[in-house]
Amino acid sequence: MQLGLIGLGKMGANMAERLRRDGHQVVGFDRSPQAPRDVDSLEGLVAALTTTPRVVWVMVPSGEPTRATVAALGELLSPGDIIIDGGNSEYVDDKAHAAALAPKGIRYLDCGVSGGVWGITEGYALMVGGDADAVAVAQPIFDSLKPPTGGFVHAGPVGSGHFVKMIHNGIEYGIMQAYGEGYELMKAVDWVTNPDEVMASWQNGTVIRSWLLDLLVRALDADPGLSQIRGYAQDSGEGRWTIEAAIENAVPMPVITAALFARFASRQTDSPTMKVVAALRNQFGGHPVGTEGSDASVPIA
Amino acid sequence: MQLGLIGLGKMGANMAERLRRDGHQVVGFDRSPQAPRDVDSLEGLVAALTTTPRVVWVMVPSGEPTRATVAALGELLSPGDIIIDGGNSEYVDDKAHAAALAPKGIRYLDCGVSGGVWGITEGYALMVGGDADAVAVAQPIFDSLKPPTGGFVHAGPVGSGHFVKMIHNGIEYGIMQAYGEGYELMKAVDWVTNPDEVMASWQNGTVIRSWLLDLLVRALDADPGLSQIRGYAQDSGEGRWTIEAAIENAVPMPVITAALFARFASRQTDSPTMKVVAALRNQFGGHPVGTEGSDASVPIA
Amino acid sequence: MQLGLIGLGKMGANMAERLRRDGHQVVGFDRSPQAPRDVDSLEGLVAALTTTPRVVWVMVPSGEPTRATVAALGELLSPGDIIIDGGNSEYVDDKAHAAALAPKGIRYLDCGVSGGVWGITEGYALMVGGDADAVAVAQPIFDSLKPPTGGFVHAGPVGSGHFVKMIHNGIEYGIMQAYGEGYELMKAVDWVTNPDEVMASWQNGTVIRSWLLDLLVRALDADPGLSQIRGYAQDSGEGRWTIEAAIENAVPMPVITAALFARFASRQTDSPTMKVVAALRNQFGGHPVGTEGSDASVPIA
Amino acid sequence: MQLGLIGLGKMGANMAERLRRDGHQVVGFDRSPQAPRDVDSLEGLVAALTTTPRVVWVMVPSGEPTRATVAALGELLSPGDIIIDGGNSEYVDDKAHAAALAPKGIRYLDCGVSGGVWGITEGYALMVGGDADAVAVAQPIFDSLKPPTGGFVHAGPVGSGHFVKMIHNGIEYGIMQAYGEGYELMKAVDWVTNPDEVMASWQNGTVIRSWLLDLLVRALDADPGLSQIRGYAQDSGEGRWTIEAAIENAVPMPVITAALFARFASRQTDSPTMKVVAALRNQFGGHPVGTEGSDASVPIA
Repeated sequence: MQLGLIGLGKMGANMAERLRRDGHQVVGFDRSPQAPRDVDSLEGLVAALTTTPRVVWVMVPSGEPTRATVAALGELLSPGDIIIDGGNSEYVDDKAHAAALAPKGIRYLDCGVSGGVWGITEGYALMVGGDADAVAVAQPIFDSLKPPTGGFVHAGPVGSGHFVKMIHNGIEYGIMQAYGEGYELMKAVDWVTNPDEVMASWQNGTVIRSWLLDLLVRALDADPGLSQIRGYAQDSGEGRWTIEAAIENAVPMPVITAALFARFASRQTDSPTMKVVAALRNQFGGHPVGTEGSDASVPIA
Repeated sequence: MQLGLIGLGKMGANMAERLRRDGHQVVGFDRSPQAPRDVDSLEGLVAALTTTPRVVWVMVPSGEPTRATVAALGELLSPGDIIIDGGNSEYVDDKAHAAALAPKGIRYLDCGVSGGVWGITEGYALMVGGDADAVAVAQPIFDSLKPPTGGFVHAGPVGSGHFVKMIHNGIEYGIMQAYGEGYELMKAVDWVTNPDEVMASWQNGTVIRSWLLDLLVRALDADPGLSQIRGYAQDSGEGRWTIEAAIENAVPMPVITAALFARFASRQTDSPTMKVVAALRNQFGGHPVGTEGSDASVPIA
Repeated sequence: MQLGLIGLGKMGANMAERLRRDGHQVVGFDRSPQAPRDVDSLEGLVAALTTTPRVVWVMVPSGEPTRATVAALGELLSPGDIIIDGGNSEYVDDKAHAAALAPKGIRYLDCGVSGGVWGITEGYALMVGGDADAVAVAQPIFDSLKPPTGGFVHAGPVGSGHFVKMIHNGIEYGIMQAYGEGYELMKAVDWVTNPDEVMASWQNGTVIRSWLLDLLVRALDADPGLSQIRGYAQDSGEGRWTIEAAIENAVPMPVITAALFARFASRQTDSPTMKVVAALRNQFGGHPVGTEGSDASVPIA
Repeated sequence: MQLGLIGLGKMGANMAERLRRDGHQVVGFDRSPQAPRDVDSLEGLVAALTTTPRVVWVMVPSGEPTRATVAALGELLSPGDIIIDGGNSEYVDDKAHAAALAPKGIRYLDCGVSGGVWGITEGYALMVGGDADAVAVAQPIFDSLKPPTGGFVHAGPVGSGHFVKMIHNGIEYGIMQAYGEGYELMKAVDWVTNPDEVMASWQNGTVIRSWLLDLLVRALDADPGLSQIRGYAQDSGEGRWTIEAAIENAVPMPVITAALFARFASRQTDSPTMKVVAALRNQFGGHPVGTEGSDASVPIA
């Protein structure tokens, strides 16, 4: 079928390619002239979509860029047309978008997408929120993007696609941190001969085999001991939103939260919290501050 | 090759079966006459092993039963023979066993085994600690037990097999808890249509696909919403030992620890800690204790 | 000086009493006719304030009640008058209130109040946000409410009073939980003769002596072992907001977050997260679900 | 009364001074000739104690030094004499000491001591484990060391004194970290005018006023913003032992554990765990590793 696709970055370009391979006609637009775009404006994109209802997939950074794109499309599309936000938007944005588009009769779907740089070959996992009739219209697109064996779910009303994708990412944080902690403990003792090799052995037959473990072994193959990598991790929003949603719903979420906080801490060069702790130890015990010498073990606290 | 196998419970019996299918001669012993044992005593088992060096695999509960079995074998075996502890022993026990057997010339290997009830068909992941010469002798056994595609590692000296298996289980705790937290958040809102279905969709194409996720989907298929299962989880030791080893080595391990503590809490019917919190809120704010009514939001603290 | 006080609940009535003892003229209003109110409407309250600028203290539940009260006052007061929100509002509400009142020339202060039921005698700790000129007008009120020895801070612009009060409460969560965890460990072993007595001894000379400890000992005196209290703890908002602000600012906050999650967990009768963990253990290891029997320690995972 | 005191470091010397001021005769020994010792050997110390039963207080580093001192005293003392270990020993050591001394008829007490450098003037909080008859003999010493208003508890049998002191320190970890986290959040926003001043205001009237807060304000007075202190904190054992005891007793202890792990993390320059996380993000999303640039928010995971 025919699809307008806005945003031809790493993800968007790969998705366009996968769709075209499967016979769809993708009209691509990106605000950058350097991108392999088919049209040079949103107006041009809408004009190029000749079958109705038009379906336009938005694949731009979340937040303001997505909000602006959806708003602009709201001025250009017609009743019955469908906007799909495939970016990493927070689910609360989806509810606002759908509410703003409803009076115009424009339909809105949110689609959480997982799979990263591997999706072009393996397929993308898709988590969709919105009305069933709009989902049905776009189903051929979803079917071509997803892996042949599964990987598609209509999670519920508008917002639920990004909501469950957000949770997916929260789980991802926890799993990654669990592998990391185990790896660190193996390295902390000097008598496990080769922690990298142990990790590789876990790919077969263990309870903890997973795609993330496969990727970790791939990284260890390329950089034994991860000696070229700094222990510094960004976060891109979904982890934070997951904790916020947990708090709002009074759900205890210790593991995913600990994983998020470990990322925050990895980016600090000095911790005000630990300054307080060091200052207090000095106050009551006369412990030196900021030195690496071990404390005497005679009680001073 | 010929192997003595002590302990014919769920795991031991399955392993014996997998080894026999691969052409090995297994002499099985269990202290229970109801078990499908080939000999009725440790002495009988040792006598039935006709090739030297003898190799005896111990597959009994960790702690005292394993310690007693290894000690008894130490009295019956000859220099050059090999004892393999395939149970869930703590790695410190291995070092004690090897030290006790060394004067007798008896060799000792520890082997962490993963795979659970699925191992008989898929193979068992094996993590072995000990001297390379002894590992080489037992290699045909390891090769038959492990999955065809991998799943074997010689991790280092005695103790390292159980040490890395312990860490494997610690990671397992973290991963399981991460999925659980995500599932709980989906269920906490009433607008995700079917959290079970979302979980199933994640098996394909996502970053978090894994064998544990496959098992979880299997459990959800059998019991939608897990309505028949109580949120009550035991722990069998390795999680605790992992944290203790982390503490000993000053390794921060927030995720795996949170997963362990969540299990502890799941088994409490009333929490003394939270009694303290409730009592304090009552003291300073006049908040009622033990009721479910929400607090007035006028500041009383 | 003259003060209008809206909200004569537990806190408001006590504060009015403390102010009157110190010579101030308090005009009290509460929407309930049963309250010891001096006027029976907001209009009446404003009319009764004869000195200008008028100063009105709002002490009603946070959220909608406070927002409605501030909005109504905005219609009744005159340029130069001052509204002080002494309730438990979230700091983002303060910024909205100040912005809405600014075009009318009405000044706005937010004041976090701590001290609970003890404040009437010991004084209330006050944390104020807003412009210095408005703070100066209300200073006689603050001086009478606060403890004689201190307990007042002008924390910064509008919102900062409630922001630091929110953090105060977050810290409170962490401290309470720390005492609780220690108490639980003492009770978990059966050979500490009297954990209550140990707690009482800690009131003198230790590093951990505090007012909260004094309150805890008071609670233990009234109810040894806290046998009459259920381990069930509400939260009233500030803890959640503290974590949300930490996340927004990428501040790792493991202790306060753990304390909040412990409260959430204390209110659950069954945990979906732990259902997942129990289900998974059953899947890979054949562990029984929902029983209290200990696991065999032969490896099944 | 007469007391032998072994170990004249910062704590021991202060305690000797406080005891002498209260009329006791202290015979001090230290292995260092530079210390203000009264005798130059353990033998000399025992010989100088003329009243029976002799009471000897050991105040040396925990672990091997304490174990060696107690063992040596066991060879020198007589039936009925009393050894008090006032150091920071782990409670398991106490049980071993008492068992080793019992056949000789030598009595053993363990005494957890809190108060740090302030104890000489304010008194030391004392937590004692052992038999009541031995406690009674040493009571005059305890009475002079403790604060006049309280601060003494006989916690139970041998080991319980150090056990509850260990828990005291665990609680201390949690409280310190809670203040630290709150301070960090105040500093993370740029609109709280003076976080140090807020901390100082909390000393009066708040729920969180405490001796540790007083010390923190003292530290902030000396070094505003703690700009001279590095966020680097040692731990001296009791925190670790507290967690280990919690694990052994299946007590969830998230807050104290988080505080311990924060100290571990504060001492790392690079985290293997976070290397794993960074490597994985690079693998599935093509995220750069080790850079501070923010991620594009188009979904790549």
